[in-house]
Amino acid sequence: MTIPSPDAVKAADSPRIAIEAVSPSVDGGRFPVKTVVGRRVVVEADVFADGHEVLGASVLWRPLGGAWRREPLAELVNDRWRGGFTPETVGAHEFVVEAWWDDFGTFRRDLTKKREAGLDVRLETEEGLTLLEQIAASAPASVARALTDIVLRLRAEPDVGARVAELLAPETRAAVDAAEHRAFATRTWPYGVTVDRVQAEFASWYELFPRSESGDPTRHGTFRDVIRRLPMIRDMGFDVLYFPPIHPIGAANRKGRNNTLTPGPDDVGSPYAIGSADGGHDALHPELGTLEDFRALVAAAKEHGLELALDFAIQCSPDHPWLKDHPGWFKWRPDGSMKYAENPPKKYQDIVNVDFYGPDAVPGLWEALRDVVLFWASEGVTTFRVDNPHTKPLPFWEWMIAEVKAKHPGAIFLSEAFTRPKVMYRLAKVGYGQSYTYFTWRNHKSEIADYLTELTTTAPKNFFRPHFFVNTPDINPYFLQTSGRAGFLIRAALATTLSGLWGMYNGFELCESAALPGKEEYLDSEKYEIRIRNWAQPGNIIPEITRLNRIRKENPALQTHLGVRFYNAFDDHVLYYGKPRFAEDGSGRIEDMALVFVNLDPHAVKDALYEVPLWEFGLGDHETIAVEDLMRGNRFTLTGKTQWIHLDPNDLPFHVWRLTRVSGEA
Amino acid sequence: MTIPSPDAVKAADSPRIAIEAVSPSVDGGRFPVKTVVGRRVVVEADVFADGHEVLGASVLWRPLGGAWRREPLAELVNDRWRGGFTPETVGAHEFVVEAWWDDFGTFRRDLTKKREAGLDVRLETEEGLTLLEQIAASAPASVARALTDIVLRLRAEPDVGARVAELLAPETRAAVDAAEHRAFATRTWPYGVTVDRVQAEFASWYELFPRSESGDPTRHGTFRDVIRRLPMIRDMGFDVLYFPPIHPIGAANRKGRNNTLTPGPDDVGSPYAIGSADGGHDALHPELGTLEDFRALVAAAKEHGLELALDFAIQCSPDHPWLKDHPGWFKWRPDGSMKYAENPPKKYQDIVNVDFYGPDAVPGLWEALRDVVLFWASEGVTTFRVDNPHTKPLPFWEWMIAEVKAKHPGAIFLSEAFTRPKVMYRLAKVGYGQSYTYFTWRNHKSEIADYLTELTTTAPKNFFRPHFFVNTPDINPYFLQTSGRAGFLIRAALATTLSGLWGMYNGFELCESAALPGKEEYLDSEKYEIRIRNWAQPGNIIPEITRLNRIRKENPALQTHLGVRFYNAFDDHVLYYGKPRFAEDGSGRIEDMALVFVNLDPHAVKDALYEVPLWEFGLGDHETIAVEDLMRGNRFTLTGKTQWIHLDPNDLPFHVWRLTRVSGEA
Repeated sequence: MTIPSPDAVKAADSPRIAIEAVSPSVDGGRFPVKTVVGRRVVVEADVFADGHEVLGASVLWRPLGGAWRREPLAELVNDRWRGGFTPETVGAHEFVVEAWWDDFGTFRRDLTKKREAGLDVRLETEEGLTLLEQIAASAPASVARALTDIVLRLRAEPDVGARVAELLAPETRAAVDAAEHRAFATRTWPYGVTVDRVQAEFASWYELFPRSESGDPTRHGTFRDVIRRLPMIRDMGFDVLYFPPIHPIGAANRKGRNNTLTPGPDDVGSPYAIGSADGGHDALHPELGTLEDFRALVAAAKEHGLELALDFAIQCSPDHPWLKDHPGWFKWRPDGSMKYAENPPKKYQDIVNVDFYGPDAVPGLWEALRDVVLFWASEGVTTFRVDNPHTKPLPFWEWMIAEVKAKHPGAIFLSEAFTRPKVMYRLAKVGYGQSYTYFTWRNHKSEIADYLTELTTTAPKNFFRPHFFVNTPDINPYFLQTSGRAGFLIRAALATTLSGLWGMYNGFELCESAALPGKEEYLDSEKYEIRIRNWAQPGNIIPEITRLNRIRKENPALQTHLGVRFYNAFDDHVLYYGKPRFAEDGSGRIEDMALVFVNLDPHAVKDALYEVPLWEFGLGDHETIAVEDLMRGNRFTLTGKTQWIHLDPNDLPFHVWRLTRVSGEA
Repeated sequence: MTIPSPDAVKAADSPRIAIEAVSPSVDGGRFPVKTVVGRRVVVEADVFADGHEVLGASVLWRPLGGAWRREPLAELVNDRWRGGFTPETVGAHEFVVEAWWDDFGTFRRDLTKKREAGLDVRLETEEGLTLLEQIAASAPASVARALTDIVLRLRAEPDVGARVAELLAPETRAAVDAAEHRAFATRTWPYGVTVDRVQAEFASWYELFPRSESGDPTRHGTFRDVIRRLPMIRDMGFDVLYFPPIHPIGAANRKGRNNTLTPGPDDVGSPYAIGSADGGHDALHPELGTLEDFRALVAAAKEHGLELALDFAIQCSPDHPWLKDHPGWFKWRPDGSMKYAENPPKKYQDIVNVDFYGPDAVPGLWEALRDVVLFWASEGVTTFRVDNPHTKPLPFWEWMIAEVKAKHPGAIFLSEAFTRPKVMYRLAKVGYGQSYTYFTWRNHKSEIADYLTELTTTAPKNFFRPHFFVNTPDINPYFLQTSGRAGFLIRAALATTLSGLWGMYNGFELCESAALPGKEEYLDSEKYEIRIRNWAQPGNIIPEITRLNRIRKENPALQTHLGVRFYNAFDDHVLYYGKPRFAEDGSGRIEDMALVFVNLDPHAVKDALYEVPLWEFGLGDHETIAVEDLMRGNRFTLTGKTQWIHLDPNDLPFHVWRLTRVSGEA
């Protein structure tokens, strides 16, 4: 009754070894994981097969299009294997996990067991020689020679003990390894790894409107004015200087002060109303300066250790040249008008959106948008803050970011999507290297801890880098509107110590918080007018920000959101957490730890009992640890696990410490 | 500087809508999920896109090769959607999730908002008519007609209010739905669903050796003898009668009593030593009877509501015909001998293994093994308990089980793999519908609860059906060796109420536990000799087993391991759990609940405080619930959440109750 089945041949050809649960991976490999250059990517997988044979496993990895390199995986417990690799260049990488039957390993294991049981193993040594012959047969000639030599020598060796000794010798194992004999070898599909420059994960952003930088309320600021501000920004410890759009501003439906629809003749309008007769997304607003001025600014910033970040806002003033040149990129109404943009409940009467699937939009619009980014990248700007990416198609971002990163592997895209969580995460999956987050609205102890725990211990840890902005031109947080100076210190401390990426929009350092009543909008918002500030204003928190940025630079554990651990402080307003720095030997030993206490209540002194994490250092509950107060510089020791902390909003509502073992200890 | 990029066209063609986290699924769809016929498969997915448009989503499903059917998905919260379907036939099925932009839904939503805001919506109604025209243009003629009629009528309608009313009318929505206009429609890849008959999940197995059924120690039992036992087995409430191998037993290296290597001339040998001059896996041991006798047994069992399960043990006595006929299916040693089988630390000197990748094994051996199973299936046996599947290649099982189920969709395979957890799970993924488990060795409260929680709430819930055997010919559990009768009651209660699948090897009902000293092997094991038993032996637990099996039949909640909830009983030896039965209206309302208390200590009376799960019925802590004691038949009520339970091993170490609302309550 046999039914011929060619499928049996196919089935027998399919992988004998199971490789499951590969990590790191995003959605089973559909999207790349993210890392930064020089950091080890720890790869794990479940590897197993039928029977009791010894298996081998490797990770093979390469920069996309480059040569594969191989690193071993070692077996942990419960069929879990671990290894890794360290990317040396920025750009797209990939890895696969390979597993095979280690026939010679199985032979060695079984021979050892039988010899130890005192059995006659002559026949087993014959089998071993046959195996070595088989391995040699499929090996390169140079390697086969060594194996054949062993076989010939042992065939002539009558003493079983001598045979066993040589079959089990490390030299024989090495000769077999060189033959790369991998029975039933199986590989996974490739898993992508986006290797970014370090700044994708660790950077401190400062945002300003160049037009406000003249120092004179009657004069429009310029790129040259910004050059004068660079030393001050650098001295505060920032790395990235970010501008809202710097392109020509349309006149049609221009916004007046405080988002009114009745502008005066001198009103400068919102820079987000991009495009006028002076040009569109690849042009500069004439009052800011020329392309030469811009280039001078890029160069000066670089000299100061700062890089520029530009805003990429895909929207057009009705005066944008594209409306006339490419009407097929827009959606027109039956009466020939166009709907203005909305991001409910916000209304943007001065701009219209493009239609990504409009009659002429593919590929013209898509390529034009990509080319805008490529143009600025060619001008030396490779960091882009993207406005409302969640209202543009996900496939557009996946394609566009890949195109740009293929030419500029160091390019970084920050997603400004304040929307539903899965959309925010998907934007990160399709290519965004950084993301604005809900941090701006997280003020309570449990919600901050819960959010950080989600970001650092669940799936997003592999693809989502949170950028903690304390404020933006669009967000004057309710918390800061009533917190006074202490609240600004609280939010600065949280952002700088919880995330590798943090940012502030200028005015924050001056504790600006005047708001449109009942709204999270700034009063007299700089989005619609020029604002001149006094940077030496009393009560400013520039010294504290400067200190926090320096602490970040000096403590690698603070250069990423990953690795945060929340500890017990017995007060609902005291958030308390640590970030360990591990020894580089991979032992898991903690070298030192940044420890942060934040009083989340800007209006009340808190004295809280807390637990010193002595156990993280392998210390008992009554032992002693050394502390350096990184904000104040003093040093002391703490003995015993339970201690009190004092946090006074009128003085400093937070502490940042570094814990180290008392010198002389192991 | 435009770079021509055909990829932009491709990117614009790729799915605009994201569909993520589809459930149920196994390893992202690599393997099918399992269900039983007639049970609703609840499908969920994250569905979202850029922007704020209204989306629609469906699940499309079919028996493999059949016609697709469509069921709606409804939006829950946080971009999660849910729907489902109910397979009506046994066999392989598949489903995909489809999502699209509901253009007309977006139009209706926005029109409603604007009308409610009191705006002039004449232009919007024009846009609506244009949309209806577009939808009609791509619809079948019969459907397009209805839409065109609406458009023509409304174009002639000057009153905006009347236009709005008709555009928002349910009839218009229905006409649009009929057009099946689905912009940007996107489908996932297919997810497999194995639909088994109900017996794959709910069955009670009874295992015996037919050769022990003569009632006379001097006579070898036969299939005809087994027929006489059927009423008794049926009366105990069992559905499946399972035999160890019934094939010819080899003489070479035959095992003697108690697994000795020195058999006497009358020793019957192990039935696992399959194959002799009388035939191999498709033959019957002559002393058991002829194929006619076997067919009579199959028919008689069916009449009694029992089905037979056979053992599929891929191994050969040295006398098996395959060794001569197909030497290329085996691995020979350099001296022409063959290694006997081992499953460390067990040694099987009377059998050898096949070599699945031997020189002639593909496809000959693979097909021959499949054909053995097909042969017995053609004889009316479609349930197979497979011996040690973890020592045979995983791709073999995936192929073989698929081949058999293609011809016999009701076929059920039980995996007897006591090995590492990931291997056990993988065997279930590749096709095993039932699996022996670690249950046999789980005796403590937390380990039982932890194991069931893993099986019912993590990934395995979708593909792994645990079969709780209380003993087997290979496992005389240490617990039962010292527990006395109470221990047998404890294990029977656990197995019958925790899992839909349970099994016992005969002798259990007589509380047999005599062991080889220090081993989990039975003394005078039936594997190597004929054993005659007295089924009326005093102290037997046949009445309790019968009652438990009846309770299972009468309480659907006990017909699966899924849905178990562990509750608080304040004693480390009292395991306490419930299984709710939900209303069929999908409301989530609990109709009634099976509640089980088990004293895990067979040697001590326990009185334990526990919590009546009043909250599950929506009742307050001081309210009253009705209880039926399903073992004893008495009925009573309990008032108040905290109560005491009394569990006496000398009487009955467990209780099984059914909780219902007091009659008259909502």
